[in-house]
Amino acid sequence: MQQRTQTTATNDGLFAVGSPVTHWSVQTSNPVQYEIQACDNLLDPANSVILEGTSGTGPRRRFVVTDRVVASLYGERIRAYFDHHAVDHRLLVLDDGETHKSMDAVLRVAEALDDFGVDRRREPVIAIGGGVLMDIVGFAASLYRRSTPFIRIPTTLIGLVDAGVGAKTGVNHNGHKNRLGTYFPADRTLLDRSFLATLDTRHISNGLSEILKIALIKDARLFDLLEQHGADLLRTKLQSPGGVGPTPADAPLEQRLAARGLHLDPATEVTERAIHGMLEELQPNLWEKVLERVVDYGHTFSPTIEMHALPALLHGEAVAVDMALTTVMAEQRGLVSAYQRERVLAVVERLGLPAWHPLCTADVLMDALRDTVRHRDGKQRLPLPVGIGSAVFVNDVTEAELKAAAEALAGLAAGVAR
Amino acid sequence: MQQRTQTTATNDGLFAVGSPVTHWSVQTSNPVQYEIQACDNLLDPANSVILEGTSGTGPRRRFVVTDRVVASLYGERIRAYFDHHAVDHRLLVLDDGETHKSMDAVLRVAEALDDFGVDRRREPVIAIGGGVLMDIVGFAASLYRRSTPFIRIPTTLIGLVDAGVGAKTGVNHNGHKNRLGTYFPADRTLLDRSFLATLDTRHISNGLSEILKIALIKDARLFDLLEQHGADLLRTKLQSPGGVGPTPADAPLEQRLAARGLHLDPATEVTERAIHGMLEELQPNLWEKVLERVVDYGHTFSPTIEMHALPALLHGEAVAVDMALTTVMAEQRGLVSAYQRERVLAVVERLGLPAWHPLCTADVLMDALRDTVRHRDGKQRLPLPVGIGSAVFVNDVTEAELKAAAEALAGLAAGVAR
Repeated sequence: MQQRTQTTATNDGLFAVGSPVTHWSVQTSNPVQYEIQACDNLLDPANSVILEGTSGTGPRRRFVVTDRVVASLYGERIRAYFDHHAVDHRLLVLDDGETHKSMDAVLRVAEALDDFGVDRRREPVIAIGGGVLMDIVGFAASLYRRSTPFIRIPTTLIGLVDAGVGAKTGVNHNGHKNRLGTYFPADRTLLDRSFLATLDTRHISNGLSEILKIALIKDARLFDLLEQHGADLLRTKLQSPGGVGPTPADAPLEQRLAARGLHLDPATEVTERAIHGMLEELQPNLWEKVLERVVDYGHTFSPTIEMHALPALLHGEAVAVDMALTTVMAEQRGLVSAYQRERVLAVVERLGLPAWHPLCTADVLMDALRDTVRHRDGKQRLPLPVGIGSAVFVNDVTEAELKAAAEALAGLAAGVAR
Repeated sequence: MQQRTQTTATNDGLFAVGSPVTHWSVQTSNPVQYEIQACDNLLDPANSVILEGTSGTGPRRRFVVTDRVVASLYGERIRAYFDHHAVDHRLLVLDDGETHKSMDAVLRVAEALDDFGVDRRREPVIAIGGGVLMDIVGFAASLYRRSTPFIRIPTTLIGLVDAGVGAKTGVNHNGHKNRLGTYFPADRTLLDRSFLATLDTRHISNGLSEILKIALIKDARLFDLLEQHGADLLRTKLQSPGGVGPTPADAPLEQRLAARGLHLDPATEVTERAIHGMLEELQPNLWEKVLERVVDYGHTFSPTIEMHALPALLHGEAVAVDMALTTVMAEQRGLVSAYQRERVLAVVERLGLPAWHPLCTADVLMDALRDTVRHRDGKQRLPLPVGIGSAVFVNDVTEAELKAAAEALAGLAAGVAR
């Protein structure tokens, strides 16, 4: 600080201007790395993947959060797992469902963390549950002592392909979807598709909706797979024949197929393509500094519809309604053909998803668009599909256009239901 | 995704392993830049600095948050300022003081933001107040829609030299100091020392405590300035003679002095050195991934003491007690001489700060240390002064040592009070 000219870089990234200094500029960068790992039989005591990657001496301790449904199905196995590994643990059970995705739940996690006590960084919090639970626990972990590492173990399909692979955490507040939240990816997400076997069909559909989103905006092959195998995937709950994923004996054939972009097993290929597509979009834009995001497709009108309809619509169901509506808008703009629109709506139906909802009125849709515009810095930046597997952004949607699309969709949906 | 070998980087920072993929690794980095700018007469309608740096068309809108004390002193001028610039604004007034640094206050800000509506990114939230207010508003801004830019205008000395220049936001929760928070620097912090003229002496002392911290751990010249001018700085509330900072006429002399590391005006030099020292430590470690932080000096025992004593002790007062205690510990370890310890305690007194508190018992101090150890990943990482202007980290503090230091400090403090 002794000799100072007008502008001085005093260390990399700190710049001081003037004498006396009248202006400092601080420049830095936060490196982030996280892992997503597919593993079978996570809760098998012989499997130590959950506890991997931790260092330090002394007794091992873990704070685990789950929801009522998961606790009733897997609570015993979860406790037995940590007991087997002699890990001192606390299992906090939260209410499940979107209506409990609130700041109250976040504060409950924080207070239970205070009570149990975790060493910051070496004792990652473990979230076992669906998208709602992971968003709550991730939010709490990001705020607790300004950041406490956590591990996600999704038990739902939407958790596996969407909430579990990104960086967003959050809760609903003041009647708005995810109004409060942070960007804070889990250090590790562990994907075990066998949890889906205990999921009801409606929640499988809920996750397929986010997979369909990736298909529509960027992956025509994924759409083909959904069109061809969607009903089967729903029925089998994405359990691969003979267990999850190809068996070791299948490996050589699987590898030859994979070299041609094909898989033995549609359930494996569908989840893999969905996750990979999602990550390709997220990795370069994890903090959403670029506001034109194709993965926002289906998420323009759905947050408002979902919050108005709570608890009637699941997240993926609201997204499906949004995708159906915007597919019709795209058709009316000539971006999607009538045949493509028909295929899309047929797949929506095949996946057990709604294509329409009574809340698709011009008023609600305009409200939703206004809120989204505030979120996207004053512009609509609305992704619309171009054919199947591609997207474009538009900024000129009018109330008349929304009204026309909603009416056309209502007619089509009535036709599908007939 | 067509041809895939064992490990494939599919775009910069996304790595997929296996076929089918069994592992994805996401690597990225969040670049952050923020500005700290000294400016006189911020609220003068002729000065448009507060509104600079915003783009976009349409009517200008700003959401402004302040506290009761600032509103009573400056509310009229704040409203007049935005009126003069024809900015549609809402002034939210929060309760002041550490006891109101709560999640409730954060949610009040979020709900008022919903009500007023801001375009994410182009309508920065403006926080005008002390450290507590800036921490609350910064926290709310970081959570609102997962990040909404904000501007800090500190009105207290602790705000100017500490809370206003870093990246930390947060609130107290469940009886713990700053238990919930984020790393989220304001895009801009605007420093106007004329606000200090209306601050009471105790709050000037409160800020001088954080300045003393920087002096003790890394800046012997700053300590000399505090020793020589501390009483004057307290009396004049860091207002420079003839206004804030050197006048234009002083500039040539000021520049010649500055080239030798000296200033015309101790108030300017003291604040500048304190801010600069703080930023030198923060810039390379903004997210506190390195847990050995010299700026944690005075912040090992003080969070617990402060929360136990609320509302009796201000933050800087608790920090002063911590610094006095650890200076005595350093003396007992031979890191600081008796003469240096005497000088430090004399300066603590001269700055109007306490050097002791009845809560300095072995029990409370051990509780505090245990919580700090959890925060610092299982180690004490306790900064202790080495002489004046340097520091070292230790990990071997025992209860006996704490007890001895607390007893010695009690005796010395009684002596000082005599």
